[in-house]
Amino acid sequence: MKKSVVLALLGLVASPAFTQSPDSLLIRRVYNEILSHGKSYDWLRQLTKGVGPRLAGSEGSKKAVDWAKKTMEAEGFDRVFLQDVKVPHWVRGAKEKATIRSSSQKIDVPIAALGGSVATPAQGITAGVIEVKNFPELRALGRDKVAGKIVFFNRPMDPTKLNTFEAYAGAVDQRAAGATEAAKLGAVGAIVRSMNPSLDDFPHTGGLRYGTGVALIPAAAISTNGAERLSALLRQNPALTFYFKQSCETLDDAASHNVVAEIKGSETPEQLIVVGGHLDSWDLAEGAHDDGAGCVQAIEVLRTLKALGIRPRHTIRAVLFANEENGLRGGVQYADLAKKNGEIHRYAIESDNGGFVPRGFGIVGTDAQVTALQRFAPLLAPYGLYEIGRGSGGADIGPLAPLGTVLIGYKPDSQRYFDYHHAANDNFEAVSERELKLGAASMTALVVLLDGMGQ
Amino acid sequence: MKKSVVLALLGLVASPAFTQSPDSLLIRRVYNEILSHGKSYDWLRQLTKGVGPRLAGSEGSKKAVDWAKKTMEAEGFDRVFLQDVKVPHWVRGAKEKATIRSSSQKIDVPIAALGGSVATPAQGITAGVIEVKNFPELRALGRDKVAGKIVFFNRPMDPTKLNTFEAYAGAVDQRAAGATEAAKLGAVGAIVRSMNPSLDDFPHTGGLRYGTGVALIPAAAISTNGAERLSALLRQNPALTFYFKQSCETLDDAASHNVVAEIKGSETPEQLIVVGGHLDSWDLAEGAHDDGAGCVQAIEVLRTLKALGIRPRHTIRAVLFANEENGLRGGVQYADLAKKNGEIHRYAIESDNGGFVPRGFGIVGTDAQVTALQRFAPLLAPYGLYEIGRGSGGADIGPLAPLGTVLIGYKPDSQRYFDYHHAANDNFEAVSERELKLGAASMTALVVLLDGMGQ
Repeated sequence: MKKSVVLALLGLVASPAFTQSPDSLLIRRVYNEILSHGKSYDWLRQLTKGVGPRLAGSEGSKKAVDWAKKTMEAEGFDRVFLQDVKVPHWVRGAKEKATIRSSSQKIDVPIAALGGSVATPAQGITAGVIEVKNFPELRALGRDKVAGKIVFFNRPMDPTKLNTFEAYAGAVDQRAAGATEAAKLGAVGAIVRSMNPSLDDFPHTGGLRYGTGVALIPAAAISTNGAERLSALLRQNPALTFYFKQSCETLDDAASHNVVAEIKGSETPEQLIVVGGHLDSWDLAEGAHDDGAGCVQAIEVLRTLKALGIRPRHTIRAVLFANEENGLRGGVQYADLAKKNGEIHRYAIESDNGGFVPRGFGIVGTDAQVTALQRFAPLLAPYGLYEIGRGSGGADIGPLAPLGTVLIGYKPDSQRYFDYHHAANDNFEAVSERELKLGAASMTALVVLLDGMGQ
Repeated sequence: MKKSVVLALLGLVASPAFTQSPDSLLIRRVYNEILSHGKSYDWLRQLTKGVGPRLAGSEGSKKAVDWAKKTMEAEGFDRVFLQDVKVPHWVRGAKEKATIRSSSQKIDVPIAALGGSVATPAQGITAGVIEVKNFPELRALGRDKVAGKIVFFNRPMDPTKLNTFEAYAGAVDQRAAGATEAAKLGAVGAIVRSMNPSLDDFPHTGGLRYGTGVALIPAAAISTNGAERLSALLRQNPALTFYFKQSCETLDDAASHNVVAEIKGSETPEQLIVVGGHLDSWDLAEGAHDDGAGCVQAIEVLRTLKALGIRPRHTIRAVLFANEENGLRGGVQYADLAKKNGEIHRYAIESDNGGFVPRGFGIVGTDAQVTALQRFAPLLAPYGLYEIGRGSGGADIGPLAPLGTVLIGYKPDSQRYFDYHHAANDNFEAVSERELKLGAASMTALVVLLDGMGQ
């Protein structure tokens, strides 16, 4: 594996500068420590099985903040503190019901209200169904055919996209804006095929955005198997009706917190390198990949530096952000405070793409900043980190961009992420201990390089 | 992802020669076909859930041969045929029992006889336990301390090895030769920690080799949790005893078959490119990763060429080998027949490292042959295949080496493989549809390049 084409072509295989440099030796120590003594997997068990779902404003969210603070304090970092964040407070209410009804049969299908959706009337909604693949198709149908109906958005994620995040980006408009587009034409509800590349029975929730000046109609995700079923039955009987009932509502904003820990820098303590993930999850799931993984990996970065007795030059912070899923209030508040306090954030690394095996890092920055990071490629390739280049950073760290921070997204392999994303099967069992730990080691290795600890 | 450091450094990102070459366009078609219409996952379901375990000589093994032949015939390949292979026939018998016994407690632990092991006496064996980490430690104890005892080999796989196959290679001597080394010093049984990097309750079986001129003592794998428990209890009470009972036996050799399908070459039909996996599995598991994945991927290579209307220059063969797990008779017989029939095997590609996400290919050949394959690297890197270099080919294709065949092992990511290897959790559910399909596409892409189909 070491004799990969990458290194071979770069002519670096036998280069002592890379295989025996202080940086390379330190990175090896990082991996050894995490793979032998890492705590991220045990922490993930606590956060998923002990705390569980933790949507902004929920009791689980409060427990998660307590858990994170105590866990960080137990590690003896230089400083652990909370930042106050006001967060939206949406609640699902009773479990949703949905039934496909035709003259001959009634078939229950699994749905889940989209985050932020309004409820149906108490008796539910029953209406005919119009299936569409996209918004142009919907608009072409016009108000005559859509008014009074439930619009069923059924465009699958494109299986030919190698990176599933591209497939997600190409399909998620249905979830985000489907209800509003349908309401513009007088629809009474929206049912959206789950953003899931596989066929199964889990509805995948996620946030929607209502447009202004348009009726708020209830919207829900249907499992991919349910979507296939509904589509097949519609072909047989276009006059069938669909019933669904949900009782979700948006309450007053709630108090929550970003949870922050840091190790003080020895040379330029006023300059920060941040690693983070988001502490909230959707209410349906334990939130193991999204984003328990990122949280425990961020704490593990600090733990590892401490375990190896490394004093960084910059201050290294682990930030567990509040409310990524349905508001991003934690990320916005973090950047606001950073600006207000005059903090210098050099780099921010987010892990929010799941606890899967490492592939690389995506960078948001100037060409020079991207090139500067790519110089680390030969040190990271032996650990399977081949993709170091422009990419997306992360939602929570995004608001730091105006401060000149280089944003870096940890990129694990994407193939399985959307099998679990925002669904009830995003649980502890879906995470591989080694893959999770390798992600933590990847992030720690990058922090070591960015800080110059090995030099 | 496309702007990875690899391509950036190679200066190939914007090179039309690579992004728009006939080869690159054909590879894109291969991926599109397999990701959109691939059959490998459905076939794997049939082979694992329909056929199930299929150790050489078993009824499952016969069913698997029938299933493979019918499946290949249904695809309308140019030729489908069987090769006769005599295979060992070892049977496990009744489920094993094992108990840790001390004065105060009796604790059952999960074990599984190692493949090829002899039975215990009908009443089982009860003896004191000597725990060792390796053979030198065992030999240092000497006959006095070992005779009459059960030797417990408890060296874990090294977690710091990035590639788990290296960790496996560093631990598997305990399973392969532990019984013989223990018997040389008069031990009455051997219990071996499962070759599993995770802690769980699945014993992982696998073949052992008895040495000549040494007593054949029964040997079993114990689950990693069981091994931890036994070790902890031994520290408390070195005088505890261990009871185990197994009734496995080796019967007369049985008739089996390699199953072969081919698409005839249009220019040099006498020259062959082989893709393959092994059809047998251990008896404990559905054999999904080991090696149902390789079998269905090999068939998928041929199906894809046909679906795309590609007539290869060389004859392309899919070979499902018999008896890799406990004899390698299928691979040996295949090479014997190839030699006898004067067949020219240019390349042989084996998939026997699990149905995980692609990482690359390992090559066994001359320096010139390895370099020749590495020229494909820029065409394969966009699909996550970064590691193209010297490596191991595969057990079944190994016997082709003397014929001058270039041996190529498909290398999926290794992190999760040994969580399932030879254990009851190596089932259909452990395989990701997309990861499996990407493996099939990787193999097809390489066949396309080796054949020169795109030119």
